[in-house]
Amino acid sequence: MRKLYIVGIGAGDPDHVTMQAVKAIRQVDVFFVIGKGAEKRELLDVRTAVLDEHMNHPFEVVEIADPPRDRAPADYTGTILDWHDRRSALLESAFARVDGVGGILVWGDPSLYDSTLRMIERVLERRIVTFEYEVIPGITSAQALAARHRMVLHRIGEPVHITTGRKLRESGLGESALVMLDGECSFTEVGGDDIHIWWGAYLGMPDEVLIEGPLRAVERRILSTRAELRAAKGWIMDIYLLRRG
Amino acid sequence: MRKLYIVGIGAGDPDHVTMQAVKAIRQVDVFFVIGKGAEKRELLDVRTAVLDEHMNHPFEVVEIADPPRDRAPADYTGTILDWHDRRSALLESAFARVDGVGGILVWGDPSLYDSTLRMIERVLERRIVTFEYEVIPGITSAQALAARHRMVLHRIGEPVHITTGRKLRESGLGESALVMLDGECSFTEVGGDDIHIWWGAYLGMPDEVLIEGPLRAVERRILSTRAELRAAKGWIMDIYLLRRG
Repeated sequence: MRKLYIVGIGAGDPDHVTMQAVKAIRQVDVFFVIGKGAEKRELLDVRTAVLDEHMNHPFEVVEIADPPRDRAPADYTGTILDWHDRRSALLESAFARVDGVGGILVWGDPSLYDSTLRMIERVLERRIVTFEYEVIPGITSAQALAARHRMVLHRIGEPVHITTGRKLRESGLGESALVMLDGECSFTEVGGDDIHIWWGAYLGMPDEVLIEGPLRAVERRILSTRAELRAAKGWIMDIYLLRRG
Repeated sequence: MRKLYIVGIGAGDPDHVTMQAVKAIRQVDVFFVIGKGAEKRELLDVRTAVLDEHMNHPFEVVEIADPPRDRAPADYTGTILDWHDRRSALLESAFARVDGVGGILVWGDPSLYDSTLRMIERVLERRIVTFEYEVIPGITSAQALAARHRMVLHRIGEPVHITTGRKLRESGLGESALVMLDGECSFTEVGGDDIHIWWGAYLGMPDEVLIEGPLRAVERRILSTRAELRAAKGWIMDIYLLRRG
């Protein structure tokens, strides 16, 4: 493999794709698709729409099944590292068979809560296959959330803290937090009457839903909306900003 | 004014622009350019390149001079709020004269360390002009930094803390921080021998410079590189990630 592009394609709207991503995609001969089984129909449609609209030559798609993984491990980091190792080994064999330019399309941005770059580093550390690689940034769901609520992510001159549901439960809420990867509605466990929430699900997709208001006033509505949507569609992806005061 | 688009156009590479941004820009009749005096030639060139490449009909550009502002105020937030008020009043008069669709192009993403959305909210609160508005997210310099260093912004499952040079000096460094708006090289004031830095200047532009390494080993090189670049070009825009351990 001559070169590998790791391309962020945005948060669910095919139009989140950048011109830089389009130019990179057009260099690619073989796309590697990791973990397809776990992805939802709508997300596959978005990826297909991006390639249909922007690809200008024939290309190959190599699917790489995701190895199984303990979803509620005692040792979180150790379990993830082991899983990355097994995924890296699968990628390595797939890369070894390619002659030309490879590409991996990543939801959101490869720099935020995505394991692709860590797997690529591992493949290269093993020194069995070698290649150049380049990373193309993409719009994240955090940015889609902010844009749809038409808000700035911080008060004037204040920091932005991006975290996970797991970390929010462990460390509590400081002044504000943008929470990703929270399958357990951890906002219900945050205490305080002065918290505001800006919540969004399926951002950038036709089924996008937004709810915003004082946390204590809207949390039950978010819980029930989230449960209904998840039941109706079979999956949900959501994100929210919490802010005190 | 029928509608206003606030469009993130990315961090300095004209190809950071998204398809969504291109489609929004093509709806616009009048672009409002705020604070042009303070912007640098290269940034103006990027904006011109974006419009030259993607605009498909004639458009008007209305320049709005930035009111003066105390750059080292005793009351930081109060001074910024007063400045936003004065900028909002100027915008309001400009909006009042437009018949059609307006647009404001924003560096990076309108949700991160940009005052445009706060000014628009103020204009609407005054209820003298009314209009619909829509926000289009854009690639930030934080994402460009991560992509060029081919790194993930956090350790596995850990948070991302985005802050300013001012806040870093006030609050010190926790586990990690992505630092924006730091004209004073505040990384030199962070104590510790176990800190790594990933630094970048003019990200996405032809003069892009990257430096990475243990902070104590590379900080002098960053200081001198930054001073030379700034002297040579007359301006600099930089950003960095610090991480302990």
